[in-house]
Amino acid sequence: MQKVRVNAFSLSLDGFAAGPRQSLQDPLGAGGMALHQWVFPTRSFQQMHQPGRTGGSTGIDDDFAARAMQDIGAWILGRNMFGPVRGPWPDAQWRGWWGDEPPYHVPVFVLTHHAREPLEMAGGTTFHFITDGIEAALDKARRAAGERDVRIGGGAATVRQYLRAQLIDEMHLAMAPVLLGAGENLFADIDLPALGYTVKEHVATEAATHITIGRD
Amino acid sequence: MQKVRVNAFSLSLDGFAAGPRQSLQDPLGAGGMALHQWVFPTRSFQQMHQPGRTGGSTGIDDDFAARAMQDIGAWILGRNMFGPVRGPWPDAQWRGWWGDEPPYHVPVFVLTHHAREPLEMAGGTTFHFITDGIEAALDKARRAAGERDVRIGGGAATVRQYLRAQLIDEMHLAMAPVLLGAGENLFADIDLPALGYTVKEHVATEAATHITIGRD
Repeated sequence: MQKVRVNAFSLSLDGFAAGPRQSLQDPLGAGGMALHQWVFPTRSFQQMHQPGRTGGSTGIDDDFAARAMQDIGAWILGRNMFGPVRGPWPDAQWRGWWGDEPPYHVPVFVLTHHAREPLEMAGGTTFHFITDGIEAALDKARRAAGERDVRIGGGAATVRQYLRAQLIDEMHLAMAPVLLGAGENLFADIDLPALGYTVKEHVATEAATHITIGRD
Repeated sequence: MQKVRVNAFSLSLDGFAAGPRQSLQDPLGAGGMALHQWVFPTRSFQQMHQPGRTGGSTGIDDDFAARAMQDIGAWILGRNMFGPVRGPWPDAQWRGWWGDEPPYHVPVFVLTHHAREPLEMAGGTTFHFITDGIEAALDKARRAAGERDVRIGGGAATVRQYLRAQLIDEMHLAMAPVLLGAGENLFADIDLPALGYTVKEHVATEAATHITIGRD
């Protein structure tokens, strides 16, 4: 059955998914890169970002990195995850952080308050800009995904909206052994048990504690 | 050198050290017992609470449980960790959660706004009630501890006060694979990196992710 998933969502021990002061130069905010150190060395990550590359680590971290890319038929991203532009789109120049061939290869639905024409990229990724809310975006993503799953890519504000609406079936968090102290907190003012979520899996490596959360 | 330590401080993944609705029947709050499942089976915990008992698990969880009790010359507790009584002490009837022989065996300084005579228990524990603030309590605890360390026992509000004052040298957190959603949050509105704290150790078991935090 089609699921709505969050995968490989990296957090600090104090719950931050990105550091403070996000900018064009520092899209993950101050200290934010440290959250993702568990994934960069993995074979799955390296092959996704440099197709044809060999090598990279295998094991638990790589297993979670691989699962994150399996059976995804559509993505949903918050606008800040698509780029640093705020307010109305001044033009069509900003085409995402990922260059001409983004690593999605499926339709990607970007939540925004400002309409924009769809943007077709190389390799099968098309960015669709959705202005009528998270449920409309999910409907479109579900249809686009067909038999496959919908992945909510982030950022934290977007994931929190879908959690509050109880629309996420499965969420994999990777808690990195770092403190950020400020930034975008996943857990602030959100009561996951009250929303029906419990911990399903829990396994740790040197690099991260992996947790899978789901609804009963 | 004498250190001020927090040890075996259990947290949920979402940062709660106790659940909501703490009461006499439920001193750790709703769901709070689940945070401590990593420690109950350990040999160190079992021997501490039932002297002479043999058995219990060994390994990483037990190593952290054992470290938690080593070289402690005095404790500091927030009043809510001493008991459920609020406001002025109506009488001397409440003598802590731990029966006639509490597991401290050293002086314990209880932070309160309401004066009370010291309370001498069996086995070397004396509760001293300190009304002139966290720094005065720490001064007294340091002197009482001699060459040994001072342990801040909790709860979260007390630990947060000492963290904010940058008075804690070393803090061991045990993150249990559970969500609480509400209660006493250790991290809310506290920026540990800004206070000089970073992660020093990080090791995980089936039962918990153990993290040691310190100042550089």
